[in-house]
Amino acid sequence: MRASRDGSAPLPRFYSIIPAGGIGSRLWPLSRADAPKFLHDLTGSGRTLLRDTWERLAPLSGEQRVMIVTGRAHRAAVEEQLPELADANIVLESEGKESSAAIGLAAAILARREPEVIVGSFAADHVIGDVAGFGAAVRQAVAAADAGYIVTIGIAPSEPAIGFGYIQTGDGVGIPGAPDARMVRSFVEKPDRPTAERYLASGGYLWNAGMFIARADRLLEQMRVSEPALVAGLEELAAAWDDPAERGPAVDRIWPGLRKIAIDYSVAEPAAAAGRLVVIPGAFDWDDVGDFAAIAKLQTGDRKSDLVILGENARVLADASSGIVVGQTDRIISLVGVQDIVVVDTPDALLVTTKANAQRVKSVVDALKLSGRSDVL
Amino acid sequence: MRASRDGSAPLPRFYSIIPAGGIGSRLWPLSRADAPKFLHDLTGSGRTLLRDTWERLAPLSGEQRVMIVTGRAHRAAVEEQLPELADANIVLESEGKESSAAIGLAAAILARREPEVIVGSFAADHVIGDVAGFGAAVRQAVAAADAGYIVTIGIAPSEPAIGFGYIQTGDGVGIPGAPDARMVRSFVEKPDRPTAERYLASGGYLWNAGMFIARADRLLEQMRVSEPALVAGLEELAAAWDDPAERGPAVDRIWPGLRKIAIDYSVAEPAAAAGRLVVIPGAFDWDDVGDFAAIAKLQTGDRKSDLVILGENARVLADASSGIVVGQTDRIISLVGVQDIVVVDTPDALLVTTKANAQRVKSVVDALKLSGRSDVL
Repeated sequence: MRASRDGSAPLPRFYSIIPAGGIGSRLWPLSRADAPKFLHDLTGSGRTLLRDTWERLAPLSGEQRVMIVTGRAHRAAVEEQLPELADANIVLESEGKESSAAIGLAAAILARREPEVIVGSFAADHVIGDVAGFGAAVRQAVAAADAGYIVTIGIAPSEPAIGFGYIQTGDGVGIPGAPDARMVRSFVEKPDRPTAERYLASGGYLWNAGMFIARADRLLEQMRVSEPALVAGLEELAAAWDDPAERGPAVDRIWPGLRKIAIDYSVAEPAAAAGRLVVIPGAFDWDDVGDFAAIAKLQTGDRKSDLVILGENARVLADASSGIVVGQTDRIISLVGVQDIVVVDTPDALLVTTKANAQRVKSVVDALKLSGRSDVL
Repeated sequence: MRASRDGSAPLPRFYSIIPAGGIGSRLWPLSRADAPKFLHDLTGSGRTLLRDTWERLAPLSGEQRVMIVTGRAHRAAVEEQLPELADANIVLESEGKESSAAIGLAAAILARREPEVIVGSFAADHVIGDVAGFGAAVRQAVAAADAGYIVTIGIAPSEPAIGFGYIQTGDGVGIPGAPDARMVRSFVEKPDRPTAERYLASGGYLWNAGMFIARADRLLEQMRVSEPALVAGLEELAAAWDDPAERGPAVDRIWPGLRKIAIDYSVAEPAAAAGRLVVIPGAFDWDDVGDFAAIAKLQTGDRKSDLVILGENARVLADASSGIVVGQTDRIISLVGVQDIVVVDTPDALLVTTKANAQRVKSVVDALKLSGRSDVL
């Protein structure tokens, strides 16, 4: 087992789960069904978001203890990104069933293999720069999970963002190894700007980064309260999973009927309401890179007049222009006098919008779906 | 000889010359060396500008009396556009030498074939909607040319345009068949907005549309005053032109050394200064479609909020967007919340600008030249 980056050993009993499922509709036409967001390098690091996620987690759990849940169509791409991934650690979905099924199945499989396992689920397509800060938060989260809690990691907000959900924090909880843990009072949906500003000023709110850490058996127990049929299906599947003869028939029999529901609703909110959810405030930078404006911001920060160029072969000629260009072709892309522009140039689709309209890109995807143009989605 | 559209016969002794040379840098990447502006349909008519020019002129001179001067590289495209074009009526330039050489050579060839010929030169890439109005102006111009004048047709300005040169008109001239002819006082370069507004208010200025009509011998006589070496070369070339054995060697010997100068400077301005130039005010609509904003305007007029789409296979999905899209690929082009945008999508180059910046597109072409990327020019 490899030592973690700061020289310390992996966390005992900890297993990372990376659900790699979402396409990232607001990043169309870059992200799409056959090239989802997690398979892109959105930071200019030279690595995909999935690879960066792996690099963050492997030192914490050990690289033999990272499980990926992804669609069958992405198996080859995932294995190419993660050559270290053990065969037993890839869970392939025959169809997307949302996060409760994806994370729940992984937890159920791991719990059968190792009853005391503590699992942590982390999206495959988020960006974190401060890896040490992230690791420190995970360490506290694992300690809190070991104490029996369901745990999330919330991000200390750096601005009144309206693109994220928030976590309202409650009282501190005395947990050995998790000195920063606080009770979660409630989850709140994406706010409007004045509400976000109030949240930021109050100091009592964190961004919901969708990170959940718990003993696998506790996670399933919590999910069972609101979704008993789902958990029954997941456990039946898990029981068959490690038998090559049984897995296929079990998947065919069970998976199609599983309910699609986000883990926020099946686990996090009920656990918070029941006083079983704690949050570790993370002091590290984090972004879910939900749209092209977020990608540009990752690279320019507050230097809003800059032009960000992504794409290793992108050839851009810009005159008095700012914004972001994502170039996936070898065409000359020329910008003349356009400000805060977003240009995404792919072989079969071109997007032109502005940073301010970046969230509306989903409307294009919806329109393409309606018009039957799923070949470019 | 075919009758003209209004039923009248072609004008006696009249010969049309269409110099088809300019690339149209401000329309890059649509217009380029191997696909110059005159070979495009910029009006959505389904016909190229060259074909439209031919359709306007053939009824006036007869379709056996239209001469095209173009680059060797465009021969096949021109002949495809103009299947009626007689072999003797295509003059191929081995390299571009500006309008004095192009029009002067055509005039010299025609003058040898038919000493009394009256020639009219009209750009291959302008747009005129009112063909009858244009024809009426040409009729007056031919009458004035027959009376010995060098003649231009100026366009009554409909707005204080800053993208065109202007002609300052002088006194009326009594010419039989050309009741509207006036002396030309001077040519003025593209003005700034206040100057253009003053021109418009005064009523004494017309747009310079680059149309010149004269007896071929008078045109060459005028050109000889300021450019004697050029005209000597053109006449030597013309003397060899209709002998297949002599033409090639004469071209190789003479053409490369000819001076590059616009006919405005070699003929029009000196003729105006000498009191030998008259102008026929044209009441018809006219545009030189110099940039993408002009193309958009052709189609929307004053409905500035519209989105204009050019390109027979263009597939555009627009949400709250206006401007112009020129699509030469089969890609999906999606616009989200962009106003007055200009998007030109070609297989090897993409341009994104705004209508307000349309004139600056030439800067991209200049930058590409400097960087050695002439393959996309």
